[in-house]
Formats: sequence, structure tokens, C-alpha cells
Amino acid sequence: MGKIITIGRQFGSGGREFGKRLSDELGYRYIDKEIICEIAKETSLSEGYVSNIIENSPESVYSISYARTLSFGDNYYLNQMRSVYSAQNDIINKFAQRENCVIIGRCADYILRNMNPYRIFVYASIESRVARCINRAENSENINLNELRKNINNVDKNRSRYYEFYTGMEWGNIENYDLCINTSGRIIKDLVPVVAKMLV
Amino acid sequence: MGKIITIGRQFGSGGREFGKRLSDELGYRYIDKEIICEIAKETSLSEGYVSNIIENSPESVYSISYARTLSFGDNYYLNQMRSVYSAQNDIINKFAQRENCVIIGRCADYILRNMNPYRIFVYASIESRVARCINRAENSENINLNELRKNINNVDKNRSRYYEFYTGMEWGNIENYDLCINTSGRIIKDLVPVVAKMLV
Repeated sequence: MGKIITIGRQFGSGGREFGKRLSDELGYRYIDKEIICEIAKETSLSEGYVSNIIENSPESVYSISYARTLSFGDNYYLNQMRSVYSAQNDIINKFAQRENCVIIGRCADYILRNMNPYRIFVYASIESRVARCINRAENSENINLNELRKNINNVDKNRSRYYEFYTGMEWGNIENYDLCINTSGRIIKDLVPVVAKMLV
Repeated sequence: MGKIITIGRQFGSGGREFGKRLSDELGYRYIDKEIICEIAKETSLSEGYVSNIIENSPESVYSISYARTLSFGDNYYLNQMRSVYSAQNDIINKFAQRENCVIIGRCADYILRNMNPYRIFVYASIESRVARCINRAENSENINLNELRKNINNVDKNRSRYYEFYTGMEWGNIENYDLCINTSGRIIKDLVPVVAKMLV
């Protein structure tokens, strides 16, 4: 069984970069999109479809309480969504059994709760997240700021619903994490080596 | 104007020890109970009475929304409570103008918001907080665990209401802090030097 670090993150907060750098700093395996690839293999669904199910929170088409009352077979899409979650569960467990790793998102903190992962949540002010998205964009001059703000909020709303649906817990609530770090105005490259020292 | 670190903390999480050690590590002034002493001087109230107003959240006798509708003079106790908050505001500003400091609680993060303080929130699981309180107690064999748990929750309910009343913000919500750190199972003496590195 490896040492596990899980990273929850607001969209645009730099959480993915934080996780990647942390895995490099500690020499841990970085696990992010490879989960989607593995799920696609296990479920025979396309990677794009799996990614859509995971990233776009299809349960947002149902209310959480309604979706919970449905049993398997009631609804084809819901059924498939649950198969993907179940495959994801197996795959995350397999990775975690095998070696030390940093896992981005996907309720890994909850899925691996019996392995005592170190659970980090990365967040930032909306202004800082907008700025980070613009810096990252290829054609930043074409960005509509209002649209961008709306998109950021939508992605996080989906992440929050997805997390709540599968874990019954509140996404971004301190109680569910060991460290919550605000990246507003901070350089992630400089933060990571310090945080790494907390973990060894 | 000094560099300011503010520490919000759940009762029993070790936030006060964290703040004291951090101030020692950084060579900053540690500000905690001296605020009460200064307020007592300014308001001519006794230290015990001031402490009671601050620590025991007297606004819990009113609903927050009702208390907000009252104007000065409506109620003697509410009036005095506001005088104490106002004196506290002045004193915290005076300390912060003078030198680098670590300030424990008392809405200092909000009061000094224009000075860009580094805002830390220290928290822990209820089990860990119970254990810390027992370790700290002189006669730990006489402690009733249910009572202790209830007391811990009550103190935090008061802190939360106090913070919400004066700031309009949610106590312990990540959005209001730069770093939220869970001390469950951690040794504060070891954590502090690492956190200090984030701040220099």
C-alpha cells in the first residue's frame, strides 16, 4: 500500500499544476487523466464519453435526492454513470495499492478513506482564477470575461454536485481535508516544496 | 505598518499554541489576551467582563438578524457589546500599525482586511480536540467526555456567531482564509517551522 495524497481543486486555482509539481517533488506517481483511459478500457465506453460523464456531472440533470431514489435499471444513463463510478473506484484502489501517488479529483479522498490519504484542497479567489485561465489561454484576446466567470462557476458547481452525490459530503468544506490552500497571488512553484515538507 | 498573521481556530485544535510558536519562529509579536487588557483600560470595564463579552458571545441572546436591527441605545448590554467591539477594533489596528504580529481570533482577519493579513484557520476532528483538551487538563480523570464534547461545540458555536455577527462572513469557510490546517494527529511543534516558510 502506497502513501496517498489527494487533491481537490477549484477550477482555475492551479490545483492540477500543484499536484503535478508535488508528485515530482516527492517522487510519487501523478494520476489524473490516466484514470479515464483505464475506465474506458474496463467499461468499453469511449474516453470522450467517460470524460464527459466524469467532468460534466451528468447527475446535474437529476436532483441529487431524486437520483438517489432511482434503482439500477430505472434509467440507462444513470446506470452507465454508476458503472463508470464503480470502475473508477476499482482503478483508483488499484493505483493506490501499487505505489505512492498524487491523485487529482475524482472523489479519491473518499474512495481511499480507509487508506488515510493526505487530503489537500486547492482554491483561489474568483479574480485570481480568471487571471490564471487567461494566462493559460492561447488566444486570450478573444475571451469574454463574463462568460469565463460563468464557466468557472459552472465547472465548480458540477464538481461540487458530483462530490456530494457520491460521498454525501460537502466539497471544499474544511472538515473533509487536511490542508486547504489558497493560491491567490501565490506562485505554485514556490509553494509546493514547502507543502512537500509537511508530508515527509 | 507591520506584517500581519491572523489565526482563527476551533476550540481544542491547538490554534493558540500554533500561533504562539509561529510568532516565536518568525520573531513577530504574539497578541492574544493583551487585547482584553487594553480594552478594559479604554472602556473602564473589568477584564473579566470584557472577556465575557468577547469569549461568550453575548449576541447569542439575540438572533443575529434581530440584533442588527437594534440601534444604539435600544439596549444597554448590546450597546456595551458594541463599545467593546469598537475598542477592540482600534486596539488591533494600533498593534498592527506598530509592528509585525500574530493575532489570535477576535475577527482580526476582517478588522485588518485592508492591510492584507495572512489569514490562517486551525481546526481538527472532534476526537482530536477532545484528546487535546484532556491532555491539557490538570485533573483529566474527572472529565465527563459527553460534557467536554458539548462544551467544545458550544464554544465554537459562539465563536462562529460572533464572527458572523461582526463580519457578515462564515467562520471556518475556506473563502475567508489563505491557509486552513487540520491538526488532527499532527505535532504542532513540527508543523509550525514548515508553515513559517510559506510566509517569508
